[in-house]
Amino acid sequence: MKKWVYAFGDGKAEGDASMRNLLGGKGANLAEMCQIGLPVPPGFTISTDVCAWYYGNGESYPEELAGQVTAALKAVEETVGSGFGDPANPVLVSVRSGGRASMPGMMDTVLNLGLNDETVVGLAAASGDERFAWDSYRRFIQMYGDVVLGIDHYSFETLLEDVKAEVGATLDTEMGASDWQELVKRYKDMVDAELGEPFPLEPHTQLWGAVGAVFGSWMNQRAKTYRRLHGISDDWGTAVNVQAMVFGNMGDDCATGVAFTRDPSTGDNRFYGEYLINAQGEDVVAGIRTPQNLTTEGRLAHGSEDPAMEESMPEIFGQLDAVRTRLEGHYKDIQDIEFTVQRGKLWMLQTRSGKRTVPAAIKIAVDMVEEGLISKDEAVLRVDAAQLDQLLHPMLDPSAEVEVFGRGLPASPGAASGIVVFSSDEAETRAQAGEDVILARTETSPEDIHGMHAARGIVTTRGGMTSHAAVVARGMGRPCVAGAGDVRIDYQSQTMACGGKSVAAGDKVTIDGASGTIMLGDVPTLQPTFSDGFRQIMVWADERRRMRVRANAETPTDVRTALEFGAEGIGLCRTEHMFFDSERIVAVRQMIMAEDEAGRREALERILPMQRADFVEIFKIMAGLPVTIRLLDPPLHEFLPHSEEEMAEVAKAASTTVEEVKRRAARLEETNPMLGHRGCRLAVTYPEICEMQARAIFEAAADAVAETGEAVIPEVMIPLAATKAEIDTLKAVIDAVAVDVSASRNCAIDYLVGTMIELPRAALQAGAIAESAEFFSFGTNDLTQTTFGLSRDDAGQFLGAYLEQGILEVDPFISLDREGVGELVQIATDRGRATRPNIKLGICGEHGGDPSSIEFCEQVGLDYVSCSPFRVPIARLAAAQAAIAADQKT
Amino acid sequence: MKKWVYAFGDGKAEGDASMRNLLGGKGANLAEMCQIGLPVPPGFTISTDVCAWYYGNGESYPEELAGQVTAALKAVEETVGSGFGDPANPVLVSVRSGGRASMPGMMDTVLNLGLNDETVVGLAAASGDERFAWDSYRRFIQMYGDVVLGIDHYSFETLLEDVKAEVGATLDTEMGASDWQELVKRYKDMVDAELGEPFPLEPHTQLWGAVGAVFGSWMNQRAKTYRRLHGISDDWGTAVNVQAMVFGNMGDDCATGVAFTRDPSTGDNRFYGEYLINAQGEDVVAGIRTPQNLTTEGRLAHGSEDPAMEESMPEIFGQLDAVRTRLEGHYKDIQDIEFTVQRGKLWMLQTRSGKRTVPAAIKIAVDMVEEGLISKDEAVLRVDAAQLDQLLHPMLDPSAEVEVFGRGLPASPGAASGIVVFSSDEAETRAQAGEDVILARTETSPEDIHGMHAARGIVTTRGGMTSHAAVVARGMGRPCVAGAGDVRIDYQSQTMACGGKSVAAGDKVTIDGASGTIMLGDVPTLQPTFSDGFRQIMVWADERRRMRVRANAETPTDVRTALEFGAEGIGLCRTEHMFFDSERIVAVRQMIMAEDEAGRREALERILPMQRADFVEIFKIMAGLPVTIRLLDPPLHEFLPHSEEEMAEVAKAASTTVEEVKRRAARLEETNPMLGHRGCRLAVTYPEICEMQARAIFEAAADAVAETGEAVIPEVMIPLAATKAEIDTLKAVIDAVAVDVSASRNCAIDYLVGTMIELPRAALQAGAIAESAEFFSFGTNDLTQTTFGLSRDDAGQFLGAYLEQGILEVDPFISLDREGVGELVQIATDRGRATRPNIKLGICGEHGGDPSSIEFCEQVGLDYVSCSPFRVPIARLAAAQAAIAADQKT
Repeated sequence: MKKWVYAFGDGKAEGDASMRNLLGGKGANLAEMCQIGLPVPPGFTISTDVCAWYYGNGESYPEELAGQVTAALKAVEETVGSGFGDPANPVLVSVRSGGRASMPGMMDTVLNLGLNDETVVGLAAASGDERFAWDSYRRFIQMYGDVVLGIDHYSFETLLEDVKAEVGATLDTEMGASDWQELVKRYKDMVDAELGEPFPLEPHTQLWGAVGAVFGSWMNQRAKTYRRLHGISDDWGTAVNVQAMVFGNMGDDCATGVAFTRDPSTGDNRFYGEYLINAQGEDVVAGIRTPQNLTTEGRLAHGSEDPAMEESMPEIFGQLDAVRTRLEGHYKDIQDIEFTVQRGKLWMLQTRSGKRTVPAAIKIAVDMVEEGLISKDEAVLRVDAAQLDQLLHPMLDPSAEVEVFGRGLPASPGAASGIVVFSSDEAETRAQAGEDVILARTETSPEDIHGMHAARGIVTTRGGMTSHAAVVARGMGRPCVAGAGDVRIDYQSQTMACGGKSVAAGDKVTIDGASGTIMLGDVPTLQPTFSDGFRQIMVWADERRRMRVRANAETPTDVRTALEFGAEGIGLCRTEHMFFDSERIVAVRQMIMAEDEAGRREALERILPMQRADFVEIFKIMAGLPVTIRLLDPPLHEFLPHSEEEMAEVAKAASTTVEEVKRRAARLEETNPMLGHRGCRLAVTYPEICEMQARAIFEAAADAVAETGEAVIPEVMIPLAATKAEIDTLKAVIDAVAVDVSASRNCAIDYLVGTMIELPRAALQAGAIAESAEFFSFGTNDLTQTTFGLSRDDAGQFLGAYLEQGILEVDPFISLDREGVGELVQIATDRGRATRPNIKLGICGEHGGDPSSIEFCEQVGLDYVSCSPFRVPIARLAAAQAAIAADQKT
Repeated sequence: MKKWVYAFGDGKAEGDASMRNLLGGKGANLAEMCQIGLPVPPGFTISTDVCAWYYGNGESYPEELAGQVTAALKAVEETVGSGFGDPANPVLVSVRSGGRASMPGMMDTVLNLGLNDETVVGLAAASGDERFAWDSYRRFIQMYGDVVLGIDHYSFETLLEDVKAEVGATLDTEMGASDWQELVKRYKDMVDAELGEPFPLEPHTQLWGAVGAVFGSWMNQRAKTYRRLHGISDDWGTAVNVQAMVFGNMGDDCATGVAFTRDPSTGDNRFYGEYLINAQGEDVVAGIRTPQNLTTEGRLAHGSEDPAMEESMPEIFGQLDAVRTRLEGHYKDIQDIEFTVQRGKLWMLQTRSGKRTVPAAIKIAVDMVEEGLISKDEAVLRVDAAQLDQLLHPMLDPSAEVEVFGRGLPASPGAASGIVVFSSDEAETRAQAGEDVILARTETSPEDIHGMHAARGIVTTRGGMTSHAAVVARGMGRPCVAGAGDVRIDYQSQTMACGGKSVAAGDKVTIDGASGTIMLGDVPTLQPTFSDGFRQIMVWADERRRMRVRANAETPTDVRTALEFGAEGIGLCRTEHMFFDSERIVAVRQMIMAEDEAGRREALERILPMQRADFVEIFKIMAGLPVTIRLLDPPLHEFLPHSEEEMAEVAKAASTTVEEVKRRAARLEETNPMLGHRGCRLAVTYPEICEMQARAIFEAAADAVAETGEAVIPEVMIPLAATKAEIDTLKAVIDAVAVDVSASRNCAIDYLVGTMIELPRAALQAGAIAESAEFFSFGTNDLTQTTFGLSRDDAGQFLGAYLEQGILEVDPFISLDREGVGELVQIATDRGRATRPNIKLGICGEHGGDPSSIEFCEQVGLDYVSCSPFRVPIARLAAAQAAIAADQKT
């Protein structure tokens, strides 16, 4: 006979914590607490298998279920020494849902089940408190009527208000036993009228009604939506927990409380919790009475006069403190517990892993290793890598008062204050004058790089989490609020407005990129500090990870930041970022405007020494570490002048007319620039650009070696290749320059030539491409755009709807789409390695800093991930976690 | 001992026509002609294996080669009864390259090899013509010096001019024996001076020099480039043919000529050729003397007085005519032959398959089936499907005189005349007034559809073979010259100019879309007529093909054309094309401008009856055949108004302001519209659009069934899906409408719901998608764009360079890229069929009308191809050829 029901109580249990999938989190932990001898009110769990059977068989129950429930209920009666539905001495039960993952939207709890017109009298007698008994009865009808019978809770509240008005009561506490009795009567009449049948009074009918309601709620709309959004399978199902009630509100020798085994906010190893004497669990949460501290230390810290439990119930507190030690020793993690004291006896109602802040998670993990509770591997796994971001940027002072101006997307974390400016040029000018500025633009483009660099923070009114502003800001570690759609910027009047408020250029604002908030005035911020715990976790993580972590950076500042954050190389140096400097852009524009190769070569001659100087500095900073330099990638029109003034400047530099500049600019316009004349297509059509860049790289390498004596092995990366022939064509150009530089400098030039894999065709052709390419770097931003046929810049119009409707579970630009993009990465990895077993494989898209994507990279077996400097610690931790997870699987 | 050399001559040969790969085309056919007893001057072929050995072994020869050549040469000497290098009676030889595919860029021919200061005397004696002997000798030195010794031919020409001037000769014919002798002396002196060593006089040295030059030329730059562009492997190598010389210029009993066994222009079964008495082969080609007709019939047809060979050399002609019959009976195809008559004896120098026009190819194929020479399958294979296009459109009258105005790309075949207009509205107005118009635009957009429809032909100055204008024009069957970059259109002055000429609106021009020419004035054109042969070939093709052929069409005119051309259904009905009609566009714009669902629904209510009426007509025309209707696909902004006038109209219809219209239009602008808010993303965000379209389809189906009694099974196609969830979401909307229409019309609605596979992710996820989709249609235009990361609209900037440099062998928008896009099609096919074995699979990209792509579709096993109506015959033929090829393989 299949077992559907698992009993627990009286120091024994049929389940344990390992049976989470079958019994749900709550049921498994109740059984586990029984197993280790903690005082748990007896009960039983109806397994998740019943839920699956229920939906697999037209919403009916397995035949054996009724008998197993009866037997388990009998065991409960025997343990507590009273009968379910016994008018003289009734046992009441709670019925709670509980799946393997906690899930809002499900039916939650029915308490006091088993009460009716007869057992209420027995409860009054047993408790010696008639008011308590009738109050419990009316609460039960209200709860059951709402969640099981589906009656609008407003119907109950109206009747409650009526009776209160009639007896002249304002607060519930002013209601007497007879008032509650009257309300019970009216509740039952109302239910009868609404449903056309009386409220069920038979306790077993009540019980099966509640069990059915739990299972029924598994398929309600809210629950289904939640599951779809959180990737929970419909097949998991929920369990039902039926447990004898204990009461913390039967007098002054009763109490109820919640606690964490350590401080969940700081992680300090301190018992941390609250309790109330003569109260029910919901009273602690509801805030009608102020809960008291559990410990004397806590009371003193809060300056409270109300006695701590340690003082008022020292013996019970002693028992509870022992439970705390027992639970931590057993679960080896901070626990979040609920307990009730009924007439001097402690009962444990729940234990679960405690939610904690990031600093607390770090401290607890490190402490527990020192306490011998967990291994270093476990400690590394305990810290949420994605949340680490919080520690790496300035935060708003939590105690500060703020006046919110507007909201947008939390595009890049950190808080910053400064005066608002509406142009990048002004941002630069005023920053050079020593002012802190916040740059506000409808959107940003590559021409705003200098302004974004100069600014403390960035606001845009258009674009999403992966818009230009967001991506660049994260790369630079600048706080950014993007796509603040309600804010209107008026460049003409140099103001921005939102909800009736207006901010002019020069006014002070503060932004919080972690929450997406724009605030008026100067809100104080706190600088990030790295705790010893943080450093310790990173040391353990570094010992453990297999993948290397590099950074995407090109300015000396960013390269230095990357090194400080622990980057082991540069995975993506975007040479075009070096082109926007105001001194250089004119030469770059002159190159673009040139109508022939000779003209381009002349302009390139001017750019060469600047690029070379950049590379020398990067090589020197990264001394000896690998540096991957990508050849010019963006469409040329991104560099074009827009204002008349800029056009005149270019016309002059290129010895041509403004008309000609405009004509050429118009010719460079593209319908779909993302799929246009960019990447290696530039170098194929204008090999002299590739030649200049290769020369700058190799000459810089020679210079850096001469200066530092450290070996420099530049990795020259060809972007946007779709064919092996492109690589061959450009490799020939690069190799020729290397031979030339090697001869003229009289030194050996050691280098690799590789390619981005960022087009589906390149992934499929990886076998052939690897014949020529010595490394692959997965450009998963563009690979996601092409695989999905989805423009990052334009997805804002519909991606929100896709996520809301659950068509996509996550934004594929934030977390790598394993099914589609991931399969291409896997294919390219397999085919690349088949051709060239020792090929170097990495990822340099934004995904290189996303923990879930990093886990995927470990599974595929990449050699390194590369991400923005500020995400390097996250990547180090996530890489370690992925390595540990991989080991645990095997 | 490996055999490297294959002898032929005297009615025997060691090779035959089947050994083309080893002996090259020329060598194999010379051997074959010997085998079947035709008179061929003796010789031998050094096989392509020697070429491979040569390059595999540091440009050296296999040890056994010299011996085998000596033996073969000896056999030649024995056959002709004279010695190689014998001063008394020398045999001279020709040395020619010849690979398995004919290939420009290779060393071609050295004639008269074996001549030197001694043998020239022997030749003079043997021929009795001293001038002939010395002329032959100087020609030999000139040819050998140029192609073997690498001396600039200019050096020889200068000396020739010198001698001519000295002796006062203008023409070569005025030169006597002693003049040639003087020139030989100067040639030898010049070679000695240039090379620092004398011209090789020893005949065997000459022979090995020529053989080496042939092999060396296999790897010269021109040959390598040609091979890369034409997909010929470097490994194939070339053979070398050494053959005894015969002379057609030894007197009046000598002649030389070329002929086709049938008329290569009409296909008529008539001997067709030219000859010259007392001449060399090159004289026929060079055009110094006018060649005479071979047959009396030919002479009379050309109105020539010069005697035909049939008249001047009746006996030889009889032999030649017998050879003609023999060759056709043997090769079972039209042959292109070369012959020489030396002193009354006929020698065959070459035979090969004859190039022919498309009408000729058809006539010859059908005739040869009737003559019992070939099977129907072979006849079907004999017609080049790609060239069939020529037959389906009007052509320029070849006898007309033309004045060329400018040139562009041959974007859509056919010729047309009319007055030039520069706007689509004017095109429509003047066409309605009964005028023939040619629409000239810098480029076209979807708003020009009505103008393009109204025009006889289209000219653009921007865009490539796959630009909007080109694609739409081909779909409509309108001639189009696209991307005429030298033509400047000035809308302001309503003129276009090119190379100093100017054309004003209203002036007559003629365009030829097959050659890309724009001509001034009204050039007469010929209407296409379908020959009986054409009809016969199509009948045989239809019997033979496995795949169905459908058409991409949506207007009643196009649908009717498709049916006439033999389409078996509509594979792609683009509903958006129905939206641009001037009556409808306002309602469509009103829908787009609506800020909420209610506003959109109101506008959609106005569009519904129009869409329904369209579908009713299509269903009626295609009575009983499948019709695939694609839901709205393009980004909404494609429908937006541009002129102030249009904006005002929309503002009025939508009860809003022009400002608001502009604001909304700006919000709809996209950076990369190809990857933006389009395809099923529109229907996911605005389900009411999908609802309206489904309703129009199902109500139309019900109407059409009621009217015609023929079953209508619409196939509703969801565009641009990347996930199964998108299909599920929209299928639910479509199914609900079907239930509703079915109830309200009280009839069963039979339909399929399927999807385009046009994104790499969809191809990879085809297994999951097939759970919901009942058919796939490969949208290979967009699949090519995303797989390559290549915008069709922008590729013009660099695709030319890619093709020129051989990085891409063919434009992937014209012929399906089998390596990349093809692999995705294969993956999707495999995975789709694994999930749903009977899934219906087709292709509806432009590739559906391209023979090479159709061959791929057959290999993958698609159920049908769909192409523009005018390409349906091409697709029918290509599908049959692919099916035959597939059968031949197995």
